[in-house]
Amino acid sequence: MPDLSLGSWTGRRARMSPDRVAVAYGDREWTYADLHERTGRVAAALAGLGVGPADRVAYLGPNHPAFLETLFGTARLGATFVPLNWRLAVPELVHILRDSGARVLVAGADQEPAATRLRELLDIRTVLVGAAYEGLLAAAGAPPEATVDGTAPCLILYTSGTTGRPKGAVLTHDNVTWNCLNLLLDVDLAADEVTLVVAPMFHVAALNQTVLPTLLKGGRVLLVPSFDPQRCLELIARHRVTYLFGVPTMFRAMTRAPGWPTADLSSVRSAICGGAPVPVAVIADYQARGVTFMQGYGLTEASPGVLMLRREYSASKAGAAGTPVFFGDVRLVRPDGRPAAPGEPGEILVRGPTVMAGYWGLAAETARTVTADGWLHTGDVGVADEEGFVTVRDRTKDVIISGGENIYPAEVEDALYRHPAVAECAVIGVPDAHWGEVGRAVVVARTGAEPEPAELLDFLADRIARFKVPKSVVFTDVLPRTASGKVVKSDLRARFGPGRKETAP
Amino acid sequence: MPDLSLGSWTGRRARMSPDRVAVAYGDREWTYADLHERTGRVAAALAGLGVGPADRVAYLGPNHPAFLETLFGTARLGATFVPLNWRLAVPELVHILRDSGARVLVAGADQEPAATRLRELLDIRTVLVGAAYEGLLAAAGAPPEATVDGTAPCLILYTSGTTGRPKGAVLTHDNVTWNCLNLLLDVDLAADEVTLVVAPMFHVAALNQTVLPTLLKGGRVLLVPSFDPQRCLELIARHRVTYLFGVPTMFRAMTRAPGWPTADLSSVRSAICGGAPVPVAVIADYQARGVTFMQGYGLTEASPGVLMLRREYSASKAGAAGTPVFFGDVRLVRPDGRPAAPGEPGEILVRGPTVMAGYWGLAAETARTVTADGWLHTGDVGVADEEGFVTVRDRTKDVIISGGENIYPAEVEDALYRHPAVAECAVIGVPDAHWGEVGRAVVVARTGAEPEPAELLDFLADRIARFKVPKSVVFTDVLPRTASGKVVKSDLRARFGPGRKETAP
Repeated sequence: MPDLSLGSWTGRRARMSPDRVAVAYGDREWTYADLHERTGRVAAALAGLGVGPADRVAYLGPNHPAFLETLFGTARLGATFVPLNWRLAVPELVHILRDSGARVLVAGADQEPAATRLRELLDIRTVLVGAAYEGLLAAAGAPPEATVDGTAPCLILYTSGTTGRPKGAVLTHDNVTWNCLNLLLDVDLAADEVTLVVAPMFHVAALNQTVLPTLLKGGRVLLVPSFDPQRCLELIARHRVTYLFGVPTMFRAMTRAPGWPTADLSSVRSAICGGAPVPVAVIADYQARGVTFMQGYGLTEASPGVLMLRREYSASKAGAAGTPVFFGDVRLVRPDGRPAAPGEPGEILVRGPTVMAGYWGLAAETARTVTADGWLHTGDVGVADEEGFVTVRDRTKDVIISGGENIYPAEVEDALYRHPAVAECAVIGVPDAHWGEVGRAVVVARTGAEPEPAELLDFLADRIARFKVPKSVVFTDVLPRTASGKVVKSDLRARFGPGRKETAP
Repeated sequence: MPDLSLGSWTGRRARMSPDRVAVAYGDREWTYADLHERTGRVAAALAGLGVGPADRVAYLGPNHPAFLETLFGTARLGATFVPLNWRLAVPELVHILRDSGARVLVAGADQEPAATRLRELLDIRTVLVGAAYEGLLAAAGAPPEATVDGTAPCLILYTSGTTGRPKGAVLTHDNVTWNCLNLLLDVDLAADEVTLVVAPMFHVAALNQTVLPTLLKGGRVLLVPSFDPQRCLELIARHRVTYLFGVPTMFRAMTRAPGWPTADLSSVRSAICGGAPVPVAVIADYQARGVTFMQGYGLTEASPGVLMLRREYSASKAGAAGTPVFFGDVRLVRPDGRPAAPGEPGEILVRGPTVMAGYWGLAAETARTVTADGWLHTGDVGVADEEGFVTVRDRTKDVIISGGENIYPAEVEDALYRHPAVAECAVIGVPDAHWGEVGRAVVVARTGAEPEPAELLDFLADRIARFKVPKSVVFTDVLPRTASGKVVKSDLRARFGPGRKETAP
């Protein structure tokens, strides 16, 4: 077996193309030779802090080169990297740091208050990016030599937690590398790639579908610490960005930025959207600007790529998530365990080299999620057409069962997004005496628009089957979302569930 | 471990991009769906002829879609594919077919005389491409289901045999796949690639650096049965060819075709040369036409990619073979076993997932060639500069040792190729009473040119160290070459060795 350890990457790339720029941030650039030199110093510094192959190192902070240096430095030691969502509250961070048993926390300069608090609460060493971090690197000697097996844990990614407590999905070095190879077989990344990284790198798709494949191919990543739609359009034009990944809300926000009508997107070769099902209307906005928009489906537990809609099907199969990645297999299974026929919804099962090793410290949960013969139960529902193209309907637990019929909210939302007065929307199930459960649309209206519930429901009735049309509409100012852009349906159900029928038509 | 078996490729690609053209030949095209359907029929037909996972299937003939169908069909059964050089004489083919123990021989329509003769001499079933082959496919049922391990033999490639009897290098499915992945990490092949395949596919580089990576990426291969430099230039323009691989003689011949001055090479994104060290003058001809010319170094036993000179170094490091591929390691070792310092020649050793399983049926030869810890001894000599860029000097056995100094013929030839009167050249060693051995240049003059030996030697003396300048020059009409373009030095030594000093200055 070849050495697939992530820690070997910077050295290999530094050997192949030392002078190419690997990372750009603000006005500064680091070549592959620079990146390799600095990751070696990080590895040595971490070893000096007592980090060994059996340990975890966490990172807290917005996109910054130190995130990548710490990732690769940690991997070079054979230790495991735990990226943290910096939007979490301290008690949530405490849970993740305790659960993972991280020994060292590297934190962005702006994370000092949280880092201080965490150091008080936990037995953890913290290093702030800036003087402390640079001081450690300057003092570091040669990195220790480590042989890292591809089956060793590389990343622990805590899943976004739309339900329950975050669980740590353990991705091995093999998982990460195979996911990058799958992506490179699908997306035409080149040696001169310029990849704009606006999504936070603690998100699996930003890291594994965007940053790491670009670095494996020898391209350049342009890190941006926070997302601003207007600034994003400016960066694309200024840096001649070629590859762009985002979650639906980001792509949607860019189309509403003041600069959108005149933005120069001519350098963009691939735009890919993930993290949640993408409304067809958003895809159309980009297609109208000449950007070929690819989309896919994945989940943290699959590193994450599972399905991809290739370029030539982006129009004819718009809305579908596509067919499996090269090194990976997918099955759709009905609740009774039998294979779903074309047109029939089924849970999406995944097998292949990108399926996680398991949930950190949760053997029973792992056994419930990944079968003994390697099939990952995603909990998501999909429908394949006769040609095998899968459309992702929804998470199993979000399915609304109404009068014996399954309603997949994403499909209803897709239709509702086409209404010009709808800025954002989500559909939840609420109890109903007659039907058992019925749909309710939660809508954020566009600024200045004041749609009537009946108008929206009539609009839907023209577009989707009658039984799928929600029975009521409620309006709100903003949808609760996770950092990766997923709507937190459990919050919506709590706020807009039973007893809030006042706006029903 | 993921399924890296070659037999799985057509099904995976048919699932991902069924409607893309995979193979073009003459006026016909086959999509990935077509290719998968036909390879299934080939697999079923071969199984019907008694081929099982432990068997070999040979192919004899110029480039044709049936070559690829037979390759993938054989792989789907878990059997091993043996491509044959159709320029070999019948006794040579008999040796290879006997040695490999091939059970079935698929032969191109134009190979009927050889196939008939081979069927008489050997216990082998032959199938001629055309009516017989199509008849078998038409009658074939569903292909048998086979699980093929990545470590199973996929190809046996008989090395070109510049010395001794051809040996069969056994490449596993893993070897082949990793070589393709390494190539895709170096060369920016895209989903819309149009790859012109002029070199014969029985050559490892044509198959593994050109055809298979293009198919893995979902691009299109345009098969041409024989090489004609003028026709090649026309095909590039007509089909908007994007990727082009050839051996030095092919690239050189194209620059001398009548259409070269006006040829449209604007579609070519990558041109790569392999098979033998490439004269700098040839690279310059393509660079002058705006084609970025990459070169590398490899050998059959390494599947073959070992070193690659990346785009950004093609000018500054012209003449070097580059640095190692991503998943692979290289060492240069002196005759005393110690590592060669920068500037010091050493034998090139290779380790990684592309190193062959061994020589077919030759355990002792394998043990002499691949060490227990996986280092392949290439028998070739290289010199690394301070930055690690390796220039391949020559095969160990071709080194001329003169007065204790090593002379590497490729370096002398490179200099001699710059002389305007030299069309082709090779340098061999001949015995010398004073120096032990001295160099002799064998030269094919350009049409119309009549260079004097003294003029050529003076030209060299201005460019390379005195001790490297040959002591004599002989002229000939054509250099003996293998099908892959390597000069057969043993032939030259036999013809122009001791006792042929008549043209010495």
